[in-house]
Amino acid sequence: MSEEFPGYRGEALQLLKRAKAEIGDIIRIVKDGETYEGILIPRSEYGDDKHIVVKLKTGYNIGISITATTKIEKIGVGIKPTFIPPTLPEQKPNLPKVAIISTGGTIASRVDYRTGGVRPALSASDLYSVVPELSEIANIDAEILFSLFSEDIKAKHWAEMAKAVAKHIEKGAAGVVMAHGTDTLGYTAAALSFALQDLPVPVIMVASQRSADRPSSDAATNLIGAVNAAAYAPFAEVAVAIHETTSDRGIVFHRGTKTRKCHTSRRDTFKSINTTPLAKTANRKITMLTKDYRKRDTSRRLSLKPNFDERATLIKFYPGLNPEIIDWHIEKGCKGIILEGTGLGHIGNYCLSAIKRAVEKGVLIAMTSQCIWGRLGMTVYDRGRDLLALGVIPLEDMLPETALVKLMWVLGQTKDREEAKKLLTKNIANEISPRTEFEGAQGENE
Amino acid sequence: MSEEFPGYRGEALQLLKRAKAEIGDIIRIVKDGETYEGILIPRSEYGDDKHIVVKLKTGYNIGISITATTKIEKIGVGIKPTFIPPTLPEQKPNLPKVAIISTGGTIASRVDYRTGGVRPALSASDLYSVVPELSEIANIDAEILFSLFSEDIKAKHWAEMAKAVAKHIEKGAAGVVMAHGTDTLGYTAAALSFALQDLPVPVIMVASQRSADRPSSDAATNLIGAVNAAAYAPFAEVAVAIHETTSDRGIVFHRGTKTRKCHTSRRDTFKSINTTPLAKTANRKITMLTKDYRKRDTSRRLSLKPNFDERATLIKFYPGLNPEIIDWHIEKGCKGIILEGTGLGHIGNYCLSAIKRAVEKGVLIAMTSQCIWGRLGMTVYDRGRDLLALGVIPLEDMLPETALVKLMWVLGQTKDREEAKKLLTKNIANEISPRTEFEGAQGENE
Repeated sequence: MSEEFPGYRGEALQLLKRAKAEIGDIIRIVKDGETYEGILIPRSEYGDDKHIVVKLKTGYNIGISITATTKIEKIGVGIKPTFIPPTLPEQKPNLPKVAIISTGGTIASRVDYRTGGVRPALSASDLYSVVPELSEIANIDAEILFSLFSEDIKAKHWAEMAKAVAKHIEKGAAGVVMAHGTDTLGYTAAALSFALQDLPVPVIMVASQRSADRPSSDAATNLIGAVNAAAYAPFAEVAVAIHETTSDRGIVFHRGTKTRKCHTSRRDTFKSINTTPLAKTANRKITMLTKDYRKRDTSRRLSLKPNFDERATLIKFYPGLNPEIIDWHIEKGCKGIILEGTGLGHIGNYCLSAIKRAVEKGVLIAMTSQCIWGRLGMTVYDRGRDLLALGVIPLEDMLPETALVKLMWVLGQTKDREEAKKLLTKNIANEISPRTEFEGAQGENE
Repeated sequence: MSEEFPGYRGEALQLLKRAKAEIGDIIRIVKDGETYEGILIPRSEYGDDKHIVVKLKTGYNIGISITATTKIEKIGVGIKPTFIPPTLPEQKPNLPKVAIISTGGTIASRVDYRTGGVRPALSASDLYSVVPELSEIANIDAEILFSLFSEDIKAKHWAEMAKAVAKHIEKGAAGVVMAHGTDTLGYTAAALSFALQDLPVPVIMVASQRSADRPSSDAATNLIGAVNAAAYAPFAEVAVAIHETTSDRGIVFHRGTKTRKCHTSRRDTFKSINTTPLAKTANRKITMLTKDYRKRDTSRRLSLKPNFDERATLIKFYPGLNPEIIDWHIEKGCKGIILEGTGLGHIGNYCLSAIKRAVEKGVLIAMTSQCIWGRLGMTVYDRGRDLLALGVIPLEDMLPETALVKLMWVLGQTKDREEAKKLLTKNIANEISPRTEFEGAQGENE
């Protein structure tokens, strides 16, 4: 591996050196009669020695596999980024203070066209230079907590995020915005909902599906909506701010425990599951969509409960699941299992004895449904009743992902099995929706 | 355990014997000042010795835990079911022949009010007596293949179902209807889509969310819609017939590889994911919703490929997933793994070395997204590119459940790793949607 050519080795590296190309230079590759032109960008450490990656004019990165006849020519030198230090706008004493905590993800980044990499852009001055409207809404106190792809975020990061939010609230923030990658945003939003109890002000998770410097970016709209809600929204809960539809107009706020990423790429990827969203906003006007919410009250004292115990697992059931997986998890020290069963809360008969063994060893086994929408009904069929008799804990209409996060949190609060069971089934942060008339008419009760 | 009192033992059994109550009798239980009246019903084998289960007048079953002061009284004898043998309607020579294969599930059952149990009701004569309209549509050839809760159905059952369908098609059926529980119907529909290639006639999977003798049942409508489509639909594919909305009007036909159960209890629980449904029907008129489908052609020769290899697994990624699970599966002989990653096809950095080890051992590792909707985009971010470089196979917009079934099927077709990889990424039964303009505009390509 070469330091000047991160990720390149072997044949590919030799070709680049021969062409005297550096990372960031514009190169032309001719291969099998096809010509590719673009900026040479670094590769990740797991690459082979056969591919060269260039950023095309369209903005896409492609990997070109080299052959014996492939030719590389340097046709332009790398553009050295010119850095103009941005100036911070003056603090406006009449505006509330909003903290923006960045953990990484697309919203907190700009594509670096020199390297093709993505770098965090969430210092306060960077923010104002990217989204100057923010200075009209609030005085921003920006903090870069992590620069992580959200798929790398784990329970220990949730704890640090909760503590960072608490610190900013103590310092008098009118609200906190947390920038986060979309991939595991739902898990983190649930985690903060449990860890930050009795919130006095809103905590708004915000993300985007396109980085801020792309023409179709949703970053600025989402960020303005989030900061505005943090500063002025009447609710004091953990919510996820994201596009309501694929159009560029409204931002919707989903409750942290009731939302999941439901599309790989659409800007309205997050949906409220089994409930309506908490609120929505357009042109800085915030409309509540439910009457049942915790109101902003700066005299309320935040109760910080940041402990999570990772000795919990989620098992998605499928036809032919090997039940020994349950025993294996227990051998590995697992204290609780969320089953993602089928339909109203079922799992194959061939898994029952493993579940029985697990419960007998004191492991918490709780049920959710891979349907995602709807509520469990474990007394309707024999299988559900069998599972209840075995000691499986039904989690109503809780999302499987939220259930896993809650289980980790519960295990971080108590070592007592019965207390843990009680906590798990108690509605703490709207993770369980109340039964509705609608459900009575259309749902499992006919 | 007692033979006359299935599922009862210990204290509960003693109390019942003292009251001289039999299964099916109407009993009154007085406990803590509350009175419960209903039909004594059998319990499942996993019960404790503390609960007695009765079917209330409302139709619900409840379990009542007995205490030292609980009193039980027999207040009515069981209604012995009167059996009137139904007569088969005459075969009508002008009507096509439709085979109905029953595997179990709510649609194939009637609640037995004497025992509270559910029993199959899919002999041809039973069917005509429950849904007499069928005799106007087709001559029915009914077969009870299994009586299984669908959560107990595995790969070996898929093979048997595929063979049963082939047999009926050989015998000249104009179409085949397969009755199946909703819970794992999506997995089976995908399995049949791969196992039954070059179908000459339609294969319609049908299910219901309420048993046929309940006032709100969707069984009759779904069954009529399914039989009508089997007899007359212009398409020759595996489709799932289910309510289009929660109202009782239209039936929609989802492609077997593109549908999943998306609600625990609603009658329109199945949805077409990342595509439009194949067709819909109301009042026996069938409307195609796509131009791109395989047409009915009785001269086409069915290609039966019923082999599935269960040495495949589905792992849903979540923050903190223990990567050793991947090694464990391989030790257990697993030949392929479907990852249900996040977003565009990502997984935590702490899982990369386990994936590398697995690929090096020749295990197929393929990626799908837990978003459910949308298409993978594994060249957009570094993590996706890293995973591709490791040898992870991206499965476009394939459902994770369909991907698992396809992997089992692929492993049943070939032992050659490269050929398996080719089969896995080749579109065989519409499991991969073509890229659309819509997606280009709104999707991962901005």
